[in-house]
Amino acid sequence: MSEKGRLEAFTDAILAIAITLLSLDLKLPARTDGEPLSEALLRHWPSYLAYVVSFLVIGIMWVNHHAMFHLIARVDRGLLFLNLLLMLVVAAIPFPTALFAEHLTETRDSHTAAALYSGTMVAMSLCYIGLWQYVIRHPALLHDQVDLAAARGTSRRFGFGILIYLATLGLSFVSGTVTLFAHLVIALYYCFDHLAVRDTVGSPGDEAIAEPS
Amino acid sequence: MSEKGRLEAFTDAILAIAITLLSLDLKLPARTDGEPLSEALLRHWPSYLAYVVSFLVIGIMWVNHHAMFHLIARVDRGLLFLNLLLMLVVAAIPFPTALFAEHLTETRDSHTAAALYSGTMVAMSLCYIGLWQYVIRHPALLHDQVDLAAARGTSRRFGFGILIYLATLGLSFVSGTVTLFAHLVIALYYCFDHLAVRDTVGSPGDEAIAEPS
Amino acid sequence: MSEKGRLEAFTDAILAIAITLLSLDLKLPARTDGEPLSEALLRHWPSYLAYVVSFLVIGIMWVNHHAMFHLIARVDRGLLFLNLLLMLVVAAIPFPTALFAEHLTETRDSHTAAALYSGTMVAMSLCYIGLWQYVIRHPALLHDQVDLAAARGTSRRFGFGILIYLATLGLSFVSGTVTLFAHLVIALYYCFDHLAVRDTVGSPGDEAIAEPS
Amino acid sequence: MSEKGRLEAFTDAILAIAITLLSLDLKLPARTDGEPLSEALLRHWPSYLAYVVSFLVIGIMWVNHHAMFHLIARVDRGLLFLNLLLMLVVAAIPFPTALFAEHLTETRDSHTAAALYSGTMVAMSLCYIGLWQYVIRHPALLHDQVDLAAARGTSRRFGFGILIYLATLGLSFVSGTVTLFAHLVIALYYCFDHLAVRDTVGSPGDEAIAEPS
Repeated sequence: MSEKGRLEAFTDAILAIAITLLSLDLKLPARTDGEPLSEALLRHWPSYLAYVVSFLVIGIMWVNHHAMFHLIARVDRGLLFLNLLLMLVVAAIPFPTALFAEHLTETRDSHTAAALYSGTMVAMSLCYIGLWQYVIRHPALLHDQVDLAAARGTSRRFGFGILIYLATLGLSFVSGTVTLFAHLVIALYYCFDHLAVRDTVGSPGDEAIAEPS
Repeated sequence: MSEKGRLEAFTDAILAIAITLLSLDLKLPARTDGEPLSEALLRHWPSYLAYVVSFLVIGIMWVNHHAMFHLIARVDRGLLFLNLLLMLVVAAIPFPTALFAEHLTETRDSHTAAALYSGTMVAMSLCYIGLWQYVIRHPALLHDQVDLAAARGTSRRFGFGILIYLATLGLSFVSGTVTLFAHLVIALYYCFDHLAVRDTVGSPGDEAIAEPS
Repeated sequence: MSEKGRLEAFTDAILAIAITLLSLDLKLPARTDGEPLSEALLRHWPSYLAYVVSFLVIGIMWVNHHAMFHLIARVDRGLLFLNLLLMLVVAAIPFPTALFAEHLTETRDSHTAAALYSGTMVAMSLCYIGLWQYVIRHPALLHDQVDLAAARGTSRRFGFGILIYLATLGLSFVSGTVTLFAHLVIALYYCFDHLAVRDTVGSPGDEAIAEPS
Repeated sequence: MSEKGRLEAFTDAILAIAITLLSLDLKLPARTDGEPLSEALLRHWPSYLAYVVSFLVIGIMWVNHHAMFHLIARVDRGLLFLNLLLMLVVAAIPFPTALFAEHLTETRDSHTAAALYSGTMVAMSLCYIGLWQYVIRHPALLHDQVDLAAARGTSRRFGFGILIYLATLGLSFVSGTVTLFAHLVIALYYCFDHLAVRDTVGSPGDEAIAEPS
């Protein structure tokens, strides 16, 4: 397998494992005496919501990573380690997710947990942009047909994503619950955005989705 | 790797992880004082049965997913996200499985746990059918040789599967134990069904099982 | 990817996950008051030994599975489900491993735990032989060059493996510790056996190890 | 897939799982009464640092394993089992990592935990060198273009790595915290070393990083 293929396979494996490990935190909290299971389950709703949000976040990262690597023809060691840094953040997502779910209904600690979760998203975005910036500065890594000007243009969209996540970081000091729903809305927005807006980069990535290569 | 290939690989990885994580809930319950290990193990039978049932369920999903994607030539973003939704449900299966096993022998809570398990199966079936409906409405995603009329016909069989799972949802209010055995019978039925009935879709899928492509 | 390729990839993924999940049971037991970490670690030796033995067992299964599938040219649904049955047993191995380690130094329960571990190995062997018997009875699944008579001959060697594991099942009623060491010796024997004895099947499998295909 | 390809895929899967399982130990310790979550999180810093260090260690192992197998053309059973031995050590890394983090701030036990961690790194290096020595003694396994003299030269660099890890083993008796930071520095050094020094082996590995094969 090529270096690029093995990097993609390794990344896919880490993303698949991290996304599946999220389910390990779908645990029931300690039940109060005589509380029926159904009530304990309902009371535990932050856990399910956090699961859905983080599942979408990692799933979207997988789609984005895909889209980026479709423009990339070859990898070097710098790219390898920047990708490893991105994985370091993504693989850790189950931890802030579990904390967020566990403390969402507590007055004081919900802010801390929300800030940690939002901060993780900011860190993830920074790593992803860093990866893309690295590629743009090493155009030899890109496929020949990729329009470099257009590729640079997409950086602006990524930058916008960071601003959004920074806003959720601010929001976490207002309300943990609102922050979690904000993350859900952002994730759903990205899903539909991916469905509606086709890549505008004039590159092999354009037809990437519809045509096996 | 093509988009389709990477989607299959990602799906396979999630299914493989979810199916293996099931074993993490093969834990011993708290033992009463002086109880021999052998008795504690025997008393814990719902855990093993739930493991077997969920293992078969995810395994069959893997076979079905396979069969479906053998008819598919290319993927688009809609398919990508519908598949992600299916994975969201399948990756969560260890949670209702563990709950089901843990509460099977309790009078009241066994109904709740059984309903949650059956509900998860209904949700999984809905996602799977949704995926197939999406493909049928976007025939450009199918291999050229696939007979669209026949493909539409298989939807009826899938719909039948949902009815079965809805029935187990009703059954869960009668008895948790009976519901678990019903799921076992359904899973075994699907296994043998797969062995006996060859796909009737006149498509490259027909010979798919017997011939490497 | 071909059916056979996807089956191998799925199997490899489950084996890789099961083998890595073994490390989750490398946990420290409750420490007595004031006990130094070093002593607690030493006292916990059955855990490390059980980890090594089960790691080798799953690793050898991976090598054997490989060797078998090198002779197989195509898969059908029967093979798919028999392989799933084998995976059901192998994926469960972390459970008897943890039990074995936890109860090895207890007088009474060590026999139960040892018997469960040995029983799992017997079940695994039975599934593996079942898989091979199925293939031999459906020679169309084999590569054309495979010598069927020789292939049948290897069944005898597999049968011998079951006898060995049945012996450890008997041994478990004598001593848990002896049984664990017996499993270690068997695993090491299989490792060196693989190194010394080249396949005697006159088939493409012969050069399989030395030549990439 | 070729034997070599399947070995690489199996190794990659184990490394990806082990690296992601590290996040399972990013758990909060028991909180003292009334302690805010933010303080508990800060107090738990050894956990995050240990996560980063072990993540880098396994990531670098992945890069190194890659580089080595780029020089290898075919695998035999000896290589298969030596690789399995390396995996046995790497898959266990989450255990000493968790122990190290948990006991870092304890006076006495931090030395034990640090020594276990450093010892694991020594064992990992020994297995890696053993693998490479085996390959050098079986030059038929190497690609034809590999310069055997140069390949032997790289053994010296590996030997240097073991000395470094042996030094951290000594350091662990001085201070657990210093040992952890030493491991961080070593990991970062290896990252940048990989970025700066291109392989000096005159082999197909040279252009491996820049060109998909």
